[in-house]
Amino acid sequence: MTYNALSPSSDSGESRRLIDFRRSPETYRHWKLRFAGEVAELAMDVDENAGLFEGYQLKLNSYDLGVDIELADALQRLRFEHPEVKVVILKSAKDKVFCAGANIRMLAGATHSHKVNFCKFTNETRNGMEDSSEFSGQKFLCAIRGTAAGGGYELALACDRIILADDGASTVSLPEIPLLAVLPGTGGLTRVTDKRKVRRDRADAFCTIEEGVKGQRAVEWRLVDQSVPNSKFDAALAEAARQLAATSDRPPDAKGIALGPLQRTITKNAVTYSTVKVEIDRAGRGATILILGPTNPPPAAVEAIHAQGADFYPLRLSCELDDAILHLRLNELEIGTLVFKSQGDPAQVMAYDALLAANSSNWLVREILNNWKRVLKRIDVTSRSLVTLIEPGSCFAGTLAEIIFACDRAFMFSGRMKGDNRPEAAVTLSLLNFGPYPMSNGLTRLATRFLGEPESVPKAKTTVGQPLDGSDAANLGLVSEAYDEVDWDDEVRIFTEERASFSADGLTGLEANLRFAGPETMETKIFGRLTAWQNWIFQRPNAVGAAGALKRYGTGVKADFNPERG
Amino acid sequence: MTYNALSPSSDSGESRRLIDFRRSPETYRHWKLRFAGEVAELAMDVDENAGLFEGYQLKLNSYDLGVDIELADALQRLRFEHPEVKVVILKSAKDKVFCAGANIRMLAGATHSHKVNFCKFTNETRNGMEDSSEFSGQKFLCAIRGTAAGGGYELALACDRIILADDGASTVSLPEIPLLAVLPGTGGLTRVTDKRKVRRDRADAFCTIEEGVKGQRAVEWRLVDQSVPNSKFDAALAEAARQLAATSDRPPDAKGIALGPLQRTITKNAVTYSTVKVEIDRAGRGATILILGPTNPPPAAVEAIHAQGADFYPLRLSCELDDAILHLRLNELEIGTLVFKSQGDPAQVMAYDALLAANSSNWLVREILNNWKRVLKRIDVTSRSLVTLIEPGSCFAGTLAEIIFACDRAFMFSGRMKGDNRPEAAVTLSLLNFGPYPMSNGLTRLATRFLGEPESVPKAKTTVGQPLDGSDAANLGLVSEAYDEVDWDDEVRIFTEERASFSADGLTGLEANLRFAGPETMETKIFGRLTAWQNWIFQRPNAVGAAGALKRYGTGVKADFNPERG
Repeated sequence: MTYNALSPSSDSGESRRLIDFRRSPETYRHWKLRFAGEVAELAMDVDENAGLFEGYQLKLNSYDLGVDIELADALQRLRFEHPEVKVVILKSAKDKVFCAGANIRMLAGATHSHKVNFCKFTNETRNGMEDSSEFSGQKFLCAIRGTAAGGGYELALACDRIILADDGASTVSLPEIPLLAVLPGTGGLTRVTDKRKVRRDRADAFCTIEEGVKGQRAVEWRLVDQSVPNSKFDAALAEAARQLAATSDRPPDAKGIALGPLQRTITKNAVTYSTVKVEIDRAGRGATILILGPTNPPPAAVEAIHAQGADFYPLRLSCELDDAILHLRLNELEIGTLVFKSQGDPAQVMAYDALLAANSSNWLVREILNNWKRVLKRIDVTSRSLVTLIEPGSCFAGTLAEIIFACDRAFMFSGRMKGDNRPEAAVTLSLLNFGPYPMSNGLTRLATRFLGEPESVPKAKTTVGQPLDGSDAANLGLVSEAYDEVDWDDEVRIFTEERASFSADGLTGLEANLRFAGPETMETKIFGRLTAWQNWIFQRPNAVGAAGALKRYGTGVKADFNPERG
Repeated sequence: MTYNALSPSSDSGESRRLIDFRRSPETYRHWKLRFAGEVAELAMDVDENAGLFEGYQLKLNSYDLGVDIELADALQRLRFEHPEVKVVILKSAKDKVFCAGANIRMLAGATHSHKVNFCKFTNETRNGMEDSSEFSGQKFLCAIRGTAAGGGYELALACDRIILADDGASTVSLPEIPLLAVLPGTGGLTRVTDKRKVRRDRADAFCTIEEGVKGQRAVEWRLVDQSVPNSKFDAALAEAARQLAATSDRPPDAKGIALGPLQRTITKNAVTYSTVKVEIDRAGRGATILILGPTNPPPAAVEAIHAQGADFYPLRLSCELDDAILHLRLNELEIGTLVFKSQGDPAQVMAYDALLAANSSNWLVREILNNWKRVLKRIDVTSRSLVTLIEPGSCFAGTLAEIIFACDRAFMFSGRMKGDNRPEAAVTLSLLNFGPYPMSNGLTRLATRFLGEPESVPKAKTTVGQPLDGSDAANLGLVSEAYDEVDWDDEVRIFTEERASFSADGLTGLEANLRFAGPETMETKIFGRLTAWQNWIFQRPNAVGAAGALKRYGTGVKADFNPERG
């Protein structure tokens, strides 16, 4: 596939065509947003000629990554720009089809890594809808008229409530197995079993019925919540929206903040934002993500956060960091190790954390904390080796210290460097390390880290606000190793060189297993069990071979399957 | 690889060389069992020239499936033949090496499906050790002198307690990533994070240190429980055995039962046991597993169960069914659908269930119930489509009805067939469907089935002992569909033909996701997350390609890795 000329143009100064995750509603090609008080309508209306790559048309509201990037943008704006919206009605702007799911020709032509990264992003976006429903009071109501197939039904599954038109033609289906020999991998199987709690034999039947299920049977099988004739459809939708709105605690009279365009400069080996600088070491297959601490102290009162809006440091940083991670995931496939560093005044980071903690019931502060939670989760499931280097002059405090705990390893500089007058390296915990940023397993990163020594969590909590030097941080188990000037350079070099020498796939599998100790949730199941099986199937000739189902789809020739099980 | 002439000879009448899971201690090539009162010693002493296939030598106590089949046999005999054994000390009979893990040349030469089936069986065997520890009072103490690498350390991880010699040379390691570019896939990663609860960054370091960890560091990192100098090793072992024995409730004076050789006849398209008949339909890629009900009523008292021993119907059936499943898994790779049927008197099955339920505190009855639990779990994780057909004259009652709930679908014949004087098809629940056979997710199959309608579990329980006809069973949600004579043949044919038309890999992934709704445990993580990632890696050129790490291991030439992540 070649990158489509219709996709958003890349930044000047680039030598390659990049996938850009920045969008704004004025340029949406695939979605329509309408607002009416506490209810918003998000209508899918895919422009079939505006695929992200060339070589396919996005017919029947089928989607590719570009469609999903717009969806993610719309959801983010609903959260921040529209505090008044309590219910989002997800619908189709096309007749007869709700959504046909991921575009098959796109999938058939995509590289393995693009398929995997595409699925990961779409999963994160749908998990984000559930996160907003649970933690931001923004509920999702899905109105299905026409067919909701595969990824189309998976999008519905991410909503709080699904209403299906009872018109003899509207259906929900997961036809991946009969048609394509792949899984409904955007959470479909997991949400069928664990969210909708469909009985196993019905789930099995449902996933093998190409034409799907409609009407009362879809209700009886728990696949949708209501099946409603066309004549009563709008009334049922309005009533369901009223009911969902009643469960929301979003503020009726608040004013949203505008998410301005995110500014960045991309050159061959660097991506520069206002608070994040990414430097790429192609020979070493690593990228350093330097986080710049706040340059100003936080405002005194919550009103000023609203006034600063998207420029408010913690929000700006989380958005820029998110964009940097996505950029590296999709555009820098051979960069295997992400090295997090920071630079700034830890006391100022702590002051911002204190402001957030003190105002966590304010709707905007809640959104900022939820955004950090999602960005940190995005780091957790990034298939790259993650390491934090805590150096003199760094500001790994509170929210920024959470990055340490999201990493596979963290090395800390102990003592002072000769001739260096930057402040000694320190780790400082804040209250935000003990609650608002749970991992997808439902535990905080510190609770997960200390599963084998739970007493270490309250012990760490007693240090909140105290800058911890290398030896203290190592003794408390907060960093992997602390090295002094004599060993630092060698140890860091050995780690990064060694990491680059390992198999990329081996590391991906290793990290996916080691990062999520403890309880499992629907989210960990989606990124563990479901995604891992889908990745396996994406390697199997029955799906992706020349005679496989993905390649043969639409040709009129049946796929040729190797019947061997195992 | 060709099947090794040294492996156990196959049954007469076979046209192919089959992998045979039946063993007896007199013919062990790889293990030595010694008994001393409440403690048994199980010493690994692999005969390097007795691999299951040709083309490799089992050096340094490395293992292949044949070694593990003997281990599984030894564990089964410890359970049934040695009720007096409270602690099993797992050790090596070789100097300087505990166990080098799965044999690399075997892995490098094996087909994808053999690797997958090999890992599944070894996982089941290790899960069985933990099951015996938790539910049979048989504890495992691992004594490591020398190196315990990869699968060697994973075997240790399945034990309750690990003692490592502190001699400067004895180490534990998971060197798969640095050496082979695959995962420690026999539960290693999951047990490191969730059983030993090793801190994540230490786990990450441990899994990338080729030479492993020894001495006090291994204790500090929670990788082993004790590190003991050679001079004190035997005393520490004896003391640990005493402590573990004190936690066991196995009966000191009971007499075990002998597990005689399991009799079967194999012909081209059939495997016949005393209580199980397997018929293979090669064209349709299906196998029918017909379970024969008991021909005699159960004995009146528990003593008679001991007297009947391995011939006692429920035990005999579970062992024969287990062998049949393993045979189909390893020797019939293209048989994609297993169709369970039964034939016999449900009242007699219920009478056996009643006897078991009334005597569940007896050690032997407990072992029989635990064996059924493990066999049913073996069915759950079998990567074949599973369907039960409940026909006139069948005996799906109690324990046998549990097979219905282990299947992806169950179809029931409703009413009578013209000219057929067999009793009408019935499903009968017993108390054993409501407790002693939990799935790996910790819930009963009925609780898992009714996750979305929990009230259906107590409702089903009110019917215990009542034969339910097709319409009752369907209304209670116990079967997928009930069909009468008019539809039966067509519906069954359509299902089996349709199933055979789907991609084998797609179905494997689908079933692995749909079968395990609800909570996750270490066991579900091993078969879900860990296994799925390993299967993916087993497809990736970095591991299995001509220049991959598995193929290049031992050649002196470094593997050539594609650095792309995704």
